[in-house]
Amino acid sequence: AEASQGHISVVLLGATGDLAKKYLWQGLFQLYMDQVSSGYSFTFHGAALTAVEPGQRLMFDVLKKLACPPDESPNRYESPNRCAVLKDQFLKLSQYHQLKTAENYTVLNREIETLLHQEGLKEAGRIFYFSVPPFAYTEIAHHINSSCRPPPGAWLRVVLEKPFGHDLESAQQLAAELSGFFREEEMYRVDHYLGKQAVAHILPFRHQNRRFLDPIWNRHHVERVEIVLKETVDAKGRISFYEQYGVIRDVLQNHLTEALMFLTMELPDNVSRAEEVLQCKLKAFQSLQGLEKKSVVLGQYQAYTSQVQEELQKAQDYISTTPTFAGVLIHSDNPRWEGVPFLLTSGKALDERVGYVRVLFKNRAYCPQRETLRDAEHSQCKAKQIIFYIGHGALNTPAVLVSRNLFRPIMPKDTWREAEGQSDLHIFGQPLSDYYMYSPVKERDAYSVLISNIYHGRKDFFITTENLLASWAFWTPLLSSISHLPLRLYPGGVENQHLLDFEMMSGEVAFTLAEPLLMPNDYRTIQSKFRQNPLVSAWSEDLISQLASDIEKTASRTVVQTGQFHLALSGGSSPVVLFQQLARHHYAFPWKDTHIWLVDERCVPLADTESNFFTLHKHLLQRVRVPYFNIHPMPVHLNQRLCVEEDRGTELYAKEIMALVANASFDLVLLGMGTDGHTASLFPHSETGLEGAQTVVLTESPVKPHQRMSLSLPLINKARQVFVLVLGKGKHNITTLLSRVGHEPRKWPISGVSPSSGQLVWYMDYEALLG
Amino acid sequence: AEASQGHISVVLLGATGDLAKKYLWQGLFQLYMDQVSSGYSFTFHGAALTAVEPGQRLMFDVLKKLACPPDESPNRYESPNRCAVLKDQFLKLSQYHQLKTAENYTVLNREIETLLHQEGLKEAGRIFYFSVPPFAYTEIAHHINSSCRPPPGAWLRVVLEKPFGHDLESAQQLAAELSGFFREEEMYRVDHYLGKQAVAHILPFRHQNRRFLDPIWNRHHVERVEIVLKETVDAKGRISFYEQYGVIRDVLQNHLTEALMFLTMELPDNVSRAEEVLQCKLKAFQSLQGLEKKSVVLGQYQAYTSQVQEELQKAQDYISTTPTFAGVLIHSDNPRWEGVPFLLTSGKALDERVGYVRVLFKNRAYCPQRETLRDAEHSQCKAKQIIFYIGHGALNTPAVLVSRNLFRPIMPKDTWREAEGQSDLHIFGQPLSDYYMYSPVKERDAYSVLISNIYHGRKDFFITTENLLASWAFWTPLLSSISHLPLRLYPGGVENQHLLDFEMMSGEVAFTLAEPLLMPNDYRTIQSKFRQNPLVSAWSEDLISQLASDIEKTASRTVVQTGQFHLALSGGSSPVVLFQQLARHHYAFPWKDTHIWLVDERCVPLADTESNFFTLHKHLLQRVRVPYFNIHPMPVHLNQRLCVEEDRGTELYAKEIMALVANASFDLVLLGMGTDGHTASLFPHSETGLEGAQTVVLTESPVKPHQRMSLSLPLINKARQVFVLVLGKGKHNITTLLSRVGHEPRKWPISGVSPSSGQLVWYMDYEALLG
Repeated sequence: AEASQGHISVVLLGATGDLAKKYLWQGLFQLYMDQVSSGYSFTFHGAALTAVEPGQRLMFDVLKKLACPPDESPNRYESPNRCAVLKDQFLKLSQYHQLKTAENYTVLNREIETLLHQEGLKEAGRIFYFSVPPFAYTEIAHHINSSCRPPPGAWLRVVLEKPFGHDLESAQQLAAELSGFFREEEMYRVDHYLGKQAVAHILPFRHQNRRFLDPIWNRHHVERVEIVLKETVDAKGRISFYEQYGVIRDVLQNHLTEALMFLTMELPDNVSRAEEVLQCKLKAFQSLQGLEKKSVVLGQYQAYTSQVQEELQKAQDYISTTPTFAGVLIHSDNPRWEGVPFLLTSGKALDERVGYVRVLFKNRAYCPQRETLRDAEHSQCKAKQIIFYIGHGALNTPAVLVSRNLFRPIMPKDTWREAEGQSDLHIFGQPLSDYYMYSPVKERDAYSVLISNIYHGRKDFFITTENLLASWAFWTPLLSSISHLPLRLYPGGVENQHLLDFEMMSGEVAFTLAEPLLMPNDYRTIQSKFRQNPLVSAWSEDLISQLASDIEKTASRTVVQTGQFHLALSGGSSPVVLFQQLARHHYAFPWKDTHIWLVDERCVPLADTESNFFTLHKHLLQRVRVPYFNIHPMPVHLNQRLCVEEDRGTELYAKEIMALVANASFDLVLLGMGTDGHTASLFPHSETGLEGAQTVVLTESPVKPHQRMSLSLPLINKARQVFVLVLGKGKHNITTLLSRVGHEPRKWPISGVSPSSGQLVWYMDYEALLG
Repeated sequence: AEASQGHISVVLLGATGDLAKKYLWQGLFQLYMDQVSSGYSFTFHGAALTAVEPGQRLMFDVLKKLACPPDESPNRYESPNRCAVLKDQFLKLSQYHQLKTAENYTVLNREIETLLHQEGLKEAGRIFYFSVPPFAYTEIAHHINSSCRPPPGAWLRVVLEKPFGHDLESAQQLAAELSGFFREEEMYRVDHYLGKQAVAHILPFRHQNRRFLDPIWNRHHVERVEIVLKETVDAKGRISFYEQYGVIRDVLQNHLTEALMFLTMELPDNVSRAEEVLQCKLKAFQSLQGLEKKSVVLGQYQAYTSQVQEELQKAQDYISTTPTFAGVLIHSDNPRWEGVPFLLTSGKALDERVGYVRVLFKNRAYCPQRETLRDAEHSQCKAKQIIFYIGHGALNTPAVLVSRNLFRPIMPKDTWREAEGQSDLHIFGQPLSDYYMYSPVKERDAYSVLISNIYHGRKDFFITTENLLASWAFWTPLLSSISHLPLRLYPGGVENQHLLDFEMMSGEVAFTLAEPLLMPNDYRTIQSKFRQNPLVSAWSEDLISQLASDIEKTASRTVVQTGQFHLALSGGSSPVVLFQQLARHHYAFPWKDTHIWLVDERCVPLADTESNFFTLHKHLLQRVRVPYFNIHPMPVHLNQRLCVEEDRGTELYAKEIMALVANASFDLVLLGMGTDGHTASLFPHSETGLEGAQTVVLTESPVKPHQRMSLSLPLINKARQVFVLVLGKGKHNITTLLSRVGHEPRKWPISGVSPSSGQLVWYMDYEALLG
């Protein structure tokens, strides 16, 4: 044997728990078998709260069942019973400890030190594997930090298992606590998906096949990406955990998101340098578009609620709102991926158990010869896909599949081998013979892979704090907004039929089949009257949708009638959601023939973030195609100064309006309303703009920036349509007041909005209207 | 029998020719059978140049072979030998005439009149069917118009067969000649595709299924459309015709284009009103984007050239450039279809005979259950298509197919019936059982359909002059530009394998397989020196491609370095093609971080079509996403007047440059060059701009509009890169001159372009460089 490189102590906390029984001891044994000749020596310390006597028994019951891996074939140079011999040794090197009190930890530390001293071993490092519930983390971490740190020169690696919080705040808190005890490089957060061979190979695959992928790994070539984990089991027996988390926290936030990152991130120069990978991953997180309610479809298998009632002893009328199925549509703003739909899907009680990452390429070919004459390697008319097949399902093995008409991938020969496919199997719409298919030379359990990586200090296989928080930052807003969304109930298994099929449309997803009639539709808009004019009211999101589609209808109709549409838009925060809605969902809007005017502007440079125009540009104009000539920002910035009377900005704008807008009558003016009853930038008791002939005026705001430019009330009242958008509880008082007063523009300028021959419509959400 | 509605005389010119033998007499006999009880009486006059005696014999040989339609089943109420009886009558009503001289036509007219008088019949109308070569049209038309017009109250219908010219000019000329003899409503131009039952049903289908199609018949839902006519035969025996026309004129300009129009046109309120259909069709023509060389792939079957040598007695070294295969990518600018690829494909010597129009819808669904559990009617994950199957191929019948997951179409029960599909047949990637399939109750030959429509005066089944000219106007520019493009040679039949497969990419098409090495590549660019600076030279199209990609590279590199890219662009006509190229093909251009400046401007309002900015906006800015703030038109229009010194536009622009462009050093300035050696708007002997401290100047042009604003030479020379684009023979003289002179900016301002620390590159096409 070689001279000792040093000694490694592995402490498994929770040594008699489920995960330890199922995977971790086997993984540690595998590590031992692999590294027994590495020059390092090992001891394995199982630990739990249980007293020594019963704990020891429980632990050794597990250890006795450790299996020799099936592919340790006897024709290797070692003797056929090598594994049996090593297992004996492994058992001798393993010891049980009760770890409950501070004293217990001190004792453990002393025992390790004593052993090292006795054997004359140099200490290489210590691994503490936390296979315990997260509430126990802080205390254990405290003890390890106080009593069990190895001496200088030896490393400490603590391994943590999910859940790492249930939202951004709790994750931050947990991370902050742990950072009081461990340095970032000491922590190994496990996402066992990163140990799945097909997932772990995504980055190496992208790197090794760079010359094939470089031209096609982008929005011009990729049609869509599916990242899927389907389970047949349900949550029975795990309800106390599951009810708090649900499918998004359990699977999407971690496993599927990590796979998403491996696909979308830019490749670092070195794909195995954890720090480079992390930086690229964080950038990829920054590029993700925020999720909305409509980015997701949610379901729950029918038996779930009764399982909750049973396992959590809830009453018979208790209804769980925890989703057990989710389909989420994600977009990235990165120029490489703009517009490409990434579909993340997972659920329990589905028809099969399978996991895969599927990249489907666009089909842009036309092949004149008939279908039966097309061959898989040469025909560009067959589907083009790359699939990282995680396991189970029809293939029942991890695999990498590449359509033969794409390229023959470069795969590391020592770990992946070309697989012979069952010729009659169809997968993702094509016979298996249409793919190059590779499977691992040696199928390895995810935990064995991860334990080996902990040993090797391969931090790129683990979730850093930054990575974790980036993921929670991405998911938390969605999780908060969907906590009371209705769920589609599904029977489970093959009975689900098409009930969970969903479709993308205009950046949203929805179930394909209509909702069963049972579910009440609370979300419709109500039409009534406010101040003698039509009132549209709804919850804010539905109200905005309604308003956006009313604006589009008005625009289309007006363009048909007159060839153009003059739209004057207000500043403020309320319209932002409207702008986003218009940019994102109204593809048919006649932007080419629309002129955009400002209702009011703050006296700041146009490119200042405070400028109304800046907001309008950011959320709307840069995302749609309005001709440059049709965009009419207010000239608040002339001769390099702001809103100076003698620069005549108001006259300039008034002339522009006169020149382009027939009769100075805008087709549609969108207004907001302040809590003081102001509208446009016309404030109570304003000296200008409430009456008189001037159409564009300079005004003073009570809040900063004080100086404003605004359309005047008489000009607004010449419009063919005026829509007033009022959102939020904060507007309830002024709304109530307004419903009682008459025409008093000096007190409440909004009360002076009264189109002389046009129409006025109020759009108020329930909060503004009802408080 | 009923009282006679009147008498119809049908004159078939070319009564003994191929088309008459194969289709027309049979069509006329069918008309007679269908209309014998209509109340009209008929006579049929075959005519040709042949003398009466042999002509009569030839014609009656044909008539004797007229067949009774197979579906005239004996169990109808008529006697089983009804057809035989009618055939006897038809032969009696038919007569041969020699029509050669003016006298012949006068005699024919007199005979018709005499007959009518004798029988006491009122004349209803006359049909003249021109089944003769087009060179004979004018003379025949002249004779008919002079001698054979029916009396007032009766109609004249002349039926014309293609070709209707071989380009826009010849078609216009032919149309003009014919219009001297016939009114538009008298002319029935046959495109026999409009008589194909599946093609003829496109508009009625769209109309009758409006409620299903309205939401999906647009770019949001349609993935692509294929309009295909494949033939197995080659052109042998028809070379003298084919060699002049080729596949585009023979099939695409007429048949496939008509199908395209039926798909893309907006639906008129009444789909059988010819005038409404025509207006909608003409609008659809207007929306088509112009074709470029790169919109098309062309091929020729290998035996073609030797067939030409043989049939046209050409020498052994004669090479034909006539395409026998074409794939064309067409886009419409109509908002409904923007971005949807329409692929028109036709060829001879292919692997099968088939014609179809296929509308493939986008697949936006994700279906969690496994593929084998999906059913055709409910799963949105199966392909969604609508196919108008014209005939032959695997189905061997006209048909309309609609994927079951789309909708069950409404079909007229009297003419279309639901077909039982062969269960094992796959068509367009799916088993036949995945479609609703309808086939005609009675399969009818296209000519029978058309002759019946002539009789009924259904002009919507024929090509009006406007329609014809619109189609030629669309195709002619492409036809001129491709007359010497290299053709891909293909062996014919199944041997073609994947040789003719083609792919779309960035609005272009190209064969998928690389060109066999035999073809010389004349099109590469040459790098050398001009005036001590790098020179890139190529044919104009390749030069522009090279320049565009060099600009993109510079932009990307600069944005990486500095975060932004300041690009100053010139006016004039040369850059237009460049702008189009950048907008159409350079998706990865970092527009978001690019600032666009003008090198020079004409003193006209910005939205004037003469304005450089207007051109830049039209061809580039409105098609890419440059933020509003990054667009910097020259302020030639201030205080509602143009380029007045005291408005200080030049100072304003200079300040804007100083404020935004580091060191006033543009990253890239693109210049052109005039035949007088001017560049930017700096003309020979200009008093401003050639030297001195002023960076932006007003100048005088020798041509209108005289007043200009321009960057000065010193400012241009501060740029980090300057590219000069010179195109066309007209520039050859100045180019030659320049290659000899030194730095003489007063004589030739372009000679003063010499970046102080930046780089100058010349882009000249071969015509400018070599004359």
